[in-house]
Amino acid sequence: MIADEDRRWLDVALDQARQGWAEDGIPIGAALVHEGRLLAAGRNRRVQLGSAILHGETDAIERAGRRPAATYQRSVLYTTLSPCHMCAGTVLLYGIPRVVIGENRTFTVAEGLLRSHGVTVEVVDDLECRALMERLLAERPTLWAEDIGVDPVR
Amino acid sequence: MIADEDRRWLDVALDQARQGWAEDGIPIGAALVHEGRLLAAGRNRRVQLGSAILHGETDAIERAGRRPAATYQRSVLYTTLSPCHMCAGTVLLYGIPRVVIGENRTFTVAEGLLRSHGVTVEVVDDLECRALMERLLAERPTLWAEDIGVDPVR
Repeated sequence: MIADEDRRWLDVALDQARQGWAEDGIPIGAALVHEGRLLAAGRNRRVQLGSAILHGETDAIERAGRRPAATYQRSVLYTTLSPCHMCAGTVLLYGIPRVVIGENRTFTVAEGLLRSHGVTVEVVDDLECRALMERLLAERPTLWAEDIGVDPVR
Repeated sequence: MIADEDRRWLDVALDQARQGWAEDGIPIGAALVHEGRLLAAGRNRRVQLGSAILHGETDAIERAGRRPAATYQRSVLYTTLSPCHMCAGTVLLYGIPRVVIGENRTFTVAEGLLRSHGVTVEVVDDLECRALMERLLAERPTLWAEDIGVDPVR
């Protein structure tokens, strides 16, 4: 079960993921929430902006702007997909204490790293988050390989 | 001793760091080099662009644009300062196999993480890289605290 509050913010992230797919991009979204208030939502912008570092999570954090440490330390990061090492490292850099993940069946590499640094990691196992990723894997596999730094399947 | 080839690219990163300081920013620079050819140089742009995610390393990787995994896997990242978790995570995301670090006396958190994933990490202990950081710590300590997600010293 997911709490209503978490469902609300995961839905903000999910809406970003849907937008990313509609833009011919990678359907992963995120939301950074400080004490119940949205600081920023973001989505993977590899295709849209030709970016190698704007994943859903980093896009949300970038769009939240410059913040003091104390803000991050009372924030929650919602993301539709389990974070890569870059995004997990960004969580550690800023000391974000809690990450709520839509799903981790299609990709997971860094949840252990987060937990080993004391971050609370919760996985919702949301069907729509997963369905978006499964469409990506089926229809845009080379793009996904590029996004996670692996050689494309031939 | 640093090899001439490494010194050449570290100097590119160092020049970026100097530019960052001259722009009233954070004096950390980086260079991404693929098989002896510069893909991009970058510098911390927190002040210049109001960015929370453009550290020297991520700025260089962003400026290198979209690249296939195979390119990163034959590249070297030069950075004037030991990488934070975000930048180390970006190295892991893309499978960059070697990182050459100007200095790690003023900051080091993620060299062990890199090595634990098989990344070759080399530290030059360069005096000018360190001198720039020492000026930052002395003259802009609150800015530096913000950049690494810690509470400013009062």
